[in-house]
Amino acid sequence: MPLKSKEGYVESLKAVRPTIFYEGQKIEDVTTHPLLLPTIENIGITYALAQREEESDLFTEFSPLIEAKVNRYGHVPQSREEMVKRIKMDRRLGNLTGLSNYRSTGADVLNCLESMTYEIDQAKGTSYHKRFTRFLSKVQSEDLSVGGTVTDPKGDRSLRPSEQEDPDLYVHVTAEMSDGIVVKGAKANQSGAGVVHELVVMPTRAMTVKDRDYAVAFAVPNNAPGLFQILSRQPGNAARVTGGPIDHGNYYAGHETLVIFNEVFIPWERVFMFREWEFSGKAVERFASYHRICYSGAVVGYLDVVIGAAALMAKMNGVSRAAHVQEKLAEMISLNETIHACGLAAALEGRQAASGAYLMNDLFANLCKLNITKMTYDIFRMAHDLTGGMIATSPSETDLRDAELGPFIQKYMRGAGSYTAEERIRVARLIEAISFGPLLGVAMHGSGSPQAQKITITRQKDISELMKVAAHLAGLRRK
Amino acid sequence: MPLKSKEGYVESLKAVRPTIFYEGQKIEDVTTHPLLLPTIENIGITYALAQREEESDLFTEFSPLIEAKVNRYGHVPQSREEMVKRIKMDRRLGNLTGLSNYRSTGADVLNCLESMTYEIDQAKGTSYHKRFTRFLSKVQSEDLSVGGTVTDPKGDRSLRPSEQEDPDLYVHVTAEMSDGIVVKGAKANQSGAGVVHELVVMPTRAMTVKDRDYAVAFAVPNNAPGLFQILSRQPGNAARVTGGPIDHGNYYAGHETLVIFNEVFIPWERVFMFREWEFSGKAVERFASYHRICYSGAVVGYLDVVIGAAALMAKMNGVSRAAHVQEKLAEMISLNETIHACGLAAALEGRQAASGAYLMNDLFANLCKLNITKMTYDIFRMAHDLTGGMIATSPSETDLRDAELGPFIQKYMRGAGSYTAEERIRVARLIEAISFGPLLGVAMHGSGSPQAQKITITRQKDISELMKVAAHLAGLRRK
Amino acid sequence: MPLKSKEGYVESLKAVRPTIFYEGQKIEDVTTHPLLLPTIENIGITYALAQREEESDLFTEFSPLIEAKVNRYGHVPQSREEMVKRIKMDRRLGNLTGLSNYRSTGADVLNCLESMTYEIDQAKGTSYHKRFTRFLSKVQSEDLSVGGTVTDPKGDRSLRPSEQEDPDLYVHVTAEMSDGIVVKGAKANQSGAGVVHELVVMPTRAMTVKDRDYAVAFAVPNNAPGLFQILSRQPGNAARVTGGPIDHGNYYAGHETLVIFNEVFIPWERVFMFREWEFSGKAVERFASYHRICYSGAVVGYLDVVIGAAALMAKMNGVSRAAHVQEKLAEMISLNETIHACGLAAALEGRQAASGAYLMNDLFANLCKLNITKMTYDIFRMAHDLTGGMIATSPSETDLRDAELGPFIQKYMRGAGSYTAEERIRVARLIEAISFGPLLGVAMHGSGSPQAQKITITRQKDISELMKVAAHLAGLRRK
Amino acid sequence: MPLKSKEGYVESLKAVRPTIFYEGQKIEDVTTHPLLLPTIENIGITYALAQREEESDLFTEFSPLIEAKVNRYGHVPQSREEMVKRIKMDRRLGNLTGLSNYRSTGADVLNCLESMTYEIDQAKGTSYHKRFTRFLSKVQSEDLSVGGTVTDPKGDRSLRPSEQEDPDLYVHVTAEMSDGIVVKGAKANQSGAGVVHELVVMPTRAMTVKDRDYAVAFAVPNNAPGLFQILSRQPGNAARVTGGPIDHGNYYAGHETLVIFNEVFIPWERVFMFREWEFSGKAVERFASYHRICYSGAVVGYLDVVIGAAALMAKMNGVSRAAHVQEKLAEMISLNETIHACGLAAALEGRQAASGAYLMNDLFANLCKLNITKMTYDIFRMAHDLTGGMIATSPSETDLRDAELGPFIQKYMRGAGSYTAEERIRVARLIEAISFGPLLGVAMHGSGSPQAQKITITRQKDISELMKVAAHLAGLRRK
Repeated sequence: MPLKSKEGYVESLKAVRPTIFYEGQKIEDVTTHPLLLPTIENIGITYALAQREEESDLFTEFSPLIEAKVNRYGHVPQSREEMVKRIKMDRRLGNLTGLSNYRSTGADVLNCLESMTYEIDQAKGTSYHKRFTRFLSKVQSEDLSVGGTVTDPKGDRSLRPSEQEDPDLYVHVTAEMSDGIVVKGAKANQSGAGVVHELVVMPTRAMTVKDRDYAVAFAVPNNAPGLFQILSRQPGNAARVTGGPIDHGNYYAGHETLVIFNEVFIPWERVFMFREWEFSGKAVERFASYHRICYSGAVVGYLDVVIGAAALMAKMNGVSRAAHVQEKLAEMISLNETIHACGLAAALEGRQAASGAYLMNDLFANLCKLNITKMTYDIFRMAHDLTGGMIATSPSETDLRDAELGPFIQKYMRGAGSYTAEERIRVARLIEAISFGPLLGVAMHGSGSPQAQKITITRQKDISELMKVAAHLAGLRRK
Repeated sequence: MPLKSKEGYVESLKAVRPTIFYEGQKIEDVTTHPLLLPTIENIGITYALAQREEESDLFTEFSPLIEAKVNRYGHVPQSREEMVKRIKMDRRLGNLTGLSNYRSTGADVLNCLESMTYEIDQAKGTSYHKRFTRFLSKVQSEDLSVGGTVTDPKGDRSLRPSEQEDPDLYVHVTAEMSDGIVVKGAKANQSGAGVVHELVVMPTRAMTVKDRDYAVAFAVPNNAPGLFQILSRQPGNAARVTGGPIDHGNYYAGHETLVIFNEVFIPWERVFMFREWEFSGKAVERFASYHRICYSGAVVGYLDVVIGAAALMAKMNGVSRAAHVQEKLAEMISLNETIHACGLAAALEGRQAASGAYLMNDLFANLCKLNITKMTYDIFRMAHDLTGGMIATSPSETDLRDAELGPFIQKYMRGAGSYTAEERIRVARLIEAISFGPLLGVAMHGSGSPQAQKITITRQKDISELMKVAAHLAGLRRK
Repeated sequence: MPLKSKEGYVESLKAVRPTIFYEGQKIEDVTTHPLLLPTIENIGITYALAQREEESDLFTEFSPLIEAKVNRYGHVPQSREEMVKRIKMDRRLGNLTGLSNYRSTGADVLNCLESMTYEIDQAKGTSYHKRFTRFLSKVQSEDLSVGGTVTDPKGDRSLRPSEQEDPDLYVHVTAEMSDGIVVKGAKANQSGAGVVHELVVMPTRAMTVKDRDYAVAFAVPNNAPGLFQILSRQPGNAARVTGGPIDHGNYYAGHETLVIFNEVFIPWERVFMFREWEFSGKAVERFASYHRICYSGAVVGYLDVVIGAAALMAKMNGVSRAAHVQEKLAEMISLNETIHACGLAAALEGRQAASGAYLMNDLFANLCKLNITKMTYDIFRMAHDLTGGMIATSPSETDLRDAELGPFIQKYMRGAGSYTAEERIRVARLIEAISFGPLLGVAMHGSGSPQAQKITITRQKDISELMKVAAHLAGLRRK
Repeated sequence: MPLKSKEGYVESLKAVRPTIFYEGQKIEDVTTHPLLLPTIENIGITYALAQREEESDLFTEFSPLIEAKVNRYGHVPQSREEMVKRIKMDRRLGNLTGLSNYRSTGADVLNCLESMTYEIDQAKGTSYHKRFTRFLSKVQSEDLSVGGTVTDPKGDRSLRPSEQEDPDLYVHVTAEMSDGIVVKGAKANQSGAGVVHELVVMPTRAMTVKDRDYAVAFAVPNNAPGLFQILSRQPGNAARVTGGPIDHGNYYAGHETLVIFNEVFIPWERVFMFREWEFSGKAVERFASYHRICYSGAVVGYLDVVIGAAALMAKMNGVSRAAHVQEKLAEMISLNETIHACGLAAALEGRQAASGAYLMNDLFANLCKLNITKMTYDIFRMAHDLTGGMIATSPSETDLRDAELGPFIQKYMRGAGSYTAEERIRVARLIEAISFGPLLGVAMHGSGSPQAQKITITRQKDISELMKVAAHLAGLRRK
């Protein structure tokens, strides 16, 4: 039975001992550090729920590969229905944690490589797919958490990888040996990469033949020699370390790291693309579509929380019946469900890959993410509106609990009816935790920036076809 | 073989002889009048394509009711797949005609009544469903065009039907007889009602017991005694009558009428709801959802044309490579596909009615229409931007053809490369025909106004559930 | 006393006899033609009000040039206060006519040339300014209506005037003689050009030395040999000719023409720029700023009408107290006043030209127009929303007056309380007249398209200055 | 000479010793605390610049009251020009500090009370104005920093002050004595209140006669017995305490406190409104307009910084020439200048109060703030877009400076050309500091929430006048 318990995940992660630094210190135990624990709880819930009977429809799937029920995050969707369940699982997790799930990027890199390796093999007679499915079997059997590492630091974005002044600004092969390869470079903005068992690396953009050393994909255990991470410092970090749970706003939290590959050896068995520059662009597009569609669950899930919290604040302020409050809630819901609809449409209009995996519709997957980059801000804006000024002015938990100051806070920050100051502060802090910080970065740049989505959308929708339709109706007689 | 040819449709319509007035005159032959002919062409294409082998997948469906292949507009969808095909058929028609199809409202009233009559029978032991399916069989077997007439004039919108000063401001029963009923009132804003064989009438809003006489649904042939229509005068009407085809901009066009029921007798066999006030609200919601989802095909279809035409204008003006043009096209496509996605999501997340018919998801169906009421204007705005000033200043076809003036127009209004003045005028007129006129009214009010959609969305998405999700995550300990 | 009466304007215009064609016919008397009369009424009101004591503060100004009180449309503003009055006069006219005023483009060409000719003279020792002020004295003394003709047909917009296949796609000099020059070409989209005494022509874009023949500005009487116009056919044209006043929706209306200069002789006395290619870009920018600021009055003025009409429809429909109606009205007002504010800011932040004329702030003037290109559509959208379906489905005036049909329309289209069908139709037609037709083209392209405004705004606001401010605060230590 | 130096401000503030608590501790010296120092620097700059010759035009004004040059923040504007200078001073300070200035709320309460006290005296024969001007003379002569404290905690927002369960939820009079009054209650969300010499208190809403005890305005030194403050805990607080300057992102920062009046005695000399409930609504509107117009400088000023920083990031990323980057910068500038324009229009269209003070136009002042509540989010959204993923993932300053980790960060986070990792991090942190935190609360709720602005706008613009204009043009013949 391949499904790990939450405790099993934590124990096995402790054994991995990923190398992560923060403020000049090596984090000795990732499973207890106050900046990583909230992400461990976020991932942990995917293990816990997969073991619950009533959740197993969403959180697990039968894997034909190892012929057993596996965690959905280790399973490559085979059908429209499985794709829809993935979206709904992500939304449910967003509801439960107020966050994206940090197991999802890895899942989408796996999704991408499953069919890409198959197609490269078909085109070039290689045997990546067998290697990959062997690795995937391991992931499924051991119920591993996988981090997907895609985004390179990029240096000068107007130059290709091979044109950069420093050749290491994109991850690349520095040596090819009989038993494997050596890679060097870094991956930036890696969400949750500190608390997973394995990292799976793939290229971040289309390549030319000159960039072929950069066209590499592989898996690496999160404790490989030469591999280490630097944790980023986010606005709420210090409060996480020093404050109490009310100050944190949300029990769950993510983290982002800079992952450095300082000459890391990768055995051939774990190499899934090697100088396959012609497939690099297609691979990143496929990953992006998988990951963008998942946002129609994950981001929508935490936006649900924000909408609910804003409604709650309005109620605690005594204004829930005001017409403008109702209008704003209706608008927030409409925006959020519009995002969700784009993801569902991407699942509905998908197709089967040559490998048998189910691919989403790229146009709608990209549209989903493009809408997120704008609508998230609109929803946050209205949530701040409904929260009132205390969105930015709540006192600390220490003061709330203070014997002398506490009573004044209780007295003056109480809400309508029986709503207490603590309740109002808790909800305001939750909205703050989700909407003031790094999740804005996720909404904007996670799985790629808006311009990338616009380009894909324009390419997917053949404008010349629309021009023909119009020309025909206008009675133009050109061929 | 129930599929009529386009000619068959026109001939049979000529035989019906609907009673329509315009500018004080009775229209003697609806099949040749310049203001009705363009709608006949619009409906005619649904007959023509249903007979083409290569289009039959979209335009026809096997009807279990009469066990034959019927036009999709006469068929009640039985599955998600059939619902999706309806949307795609509507989009294709929008592409081909630059319009919504005027057979669709009727189709959606039929869709609604099929399951509603079944559910009323179940609840109240009535036998509406049998009557209805008998009528539906006739529609299918004879391949009839049906107009759906829903919107009452409403008078004072703050009052219920029974509270109006004039009791006739909503269609209602004025007499109940052994062989049928007599109805009086009117239906406003009826699109295409002048060129269909049958009208099917249903209530436009929820009712109370006091309004029970208004809770009535029935079918009536478009030549029943006491039934007549007044054609509305729209901005382009006069040009339709006097101008040439280039002036018209679009070969196809709709029309709207005020349908008056001046004491019309309806035999029991054609009565599908009679004083069923408790079901009136549910019925109109169901119709609305069916019709709103169809807009994700129909409106999207003609917006495709506008986008293509705008791209064509940019090309003819020599600016198609300008970055801002590319940005605007990407944005127009993104908006339009967002609408489409909402419709597809409504189909994906549907459910089976008790009668076996397939019902869409109401939330997404309403969201689709709500987005249309805003996004259509945004798309038109960008199309006008790309068209340039001639969107509003093209000379008449007569002048273009004039021996003396024509050469000046040809000379001065030519485009880049070999694009001629006529070609530019044709495309500008097409955009004008779609975006300057009554289709703005359709986008805004067709199938109900935006506030109706917001209300349904808010009702469909239980905000108290979202509040619970947020309260849980914020650590509130209330029950 | 230079102020003409409205009748004086009409009589003097009749004497000019401009040459205009429509549908192959020469219009014999422009002062009575149904497509030109509504513009004559629009211009006529500027004469009528200037003679009223209580309006003279807005509509007239003391001209130091001829030392007399002149119509403000013939006066070049000398101060911030006069600029503000111009904006407010335009708004008042928009309120009174539901339109821009068709005397304003000419006024802004005069405004531009007054200071430009002065500056060219200063730079090059020419004597354009004296010629120009002589012409301006005539305009003021005789209270002439002037058309500003700026927009060339442009052909391939990616090519400069001298690069076009046909050299006539921009107005240019074809001969230079002792007593004057000969010009050839056309000006497109000319609003109201059919009913003014004089046309003043200037370039539409920046030029290079190769385009010097195109860098020409001059005045020409609207009956010069070789000059003629073709009236464009707009959606409502035919209804204007055939329908009744209710059908027209608005008593006032504009018109646009293609003005053709088929080898027209211009005496030197009336030439204000001759091959001054270096000043062409600056001139068009100055004109554009003058004209864009005037939109903060004119367009705002007719949007006021639309907002008021929408509020009236809501009241007649019995829903004026609904919260969503109040929200939409507040939003419409906010958008419209935002446009107005940009114009006022442009006046406040203006400066004196070398000639003594008052120049507006270019950034805010362009911003005003850029906001119009979007906000007008948003306001129209909400107006259509509040109007209800009858925005597109009102019956004709003939049917409303018909002895048999009329009573049915009166009965079924009545509103709440005592509001009659006619009143509702009248208001719906007014909204239709303003929002369905050519005024969309004006809002978008009048005085230049949005991209032109964006370019000017970016040029006016030095982004490198903002970068320095940010770099300083971020602690960057670069020079 | 009344102008204090920056050092003088700090010294005098140290002498005041305001009572402030944070995390259960009393802050012993407000002038050195890491959470208050950045606000002291923000206010300090207003002292420093007022003493510089080249800045004195903006930062000082001649006060007729004390017949000397005073800091503009202590001066009540007497004319349109002075109002415009206030806006421009605020913008300049926003440019220099990336923040609103925390001396401005107090200034606007002074502005409001100057004319309000005059008007109350005129209406009721009281003598508030003399008291007030005496206090104002002191503020000017001693160049005091004043905090404006307006917002009460409000409890149940659907109830009036006197209807609340706890009578202290709005500040009110609890005793009236021969030498003064005693007040109790609290003021929430008080920006910068910890580092000013004096607080001036006024009501936050309109009152009825039953609320008369709440209709009170007064000045109180920031060390009065019974007065104390609790500092709020904001997301970046902990990092301010522990991190280094790069982590802070911005040298300057604000703070918000809960100000508690626990039975504070106010001598009559400092009471400016006493139970003047009829003037309470007017007073808060006047304050709000003054403060909302100041946002057209202050908020615009820090948005300038964000726009410049985003442009800088794009340049450092090597993409500053990309068309979509240019489009976004143009749009950001357009939004920001639109806000500025509304403020300028409010100044232009102002009027003189009875006291001689200059009042802004309320409609435009409110519009300015309403636009801020939306446009700020739009600008931040685009800034995050241009910044790239590192907006949320930069490493800490400690790691950047770390001997072992630093070189990896330097290597992998470098930008295009010679731009270093540190430079990119500095700019990303600056954007983060401004856009991720409490300034969102300021933009939304500072000087009142958007619904308050909408209500004022609707009241200022008489919709019935617009309805009359439309009715006239539509030919309606009602009186």
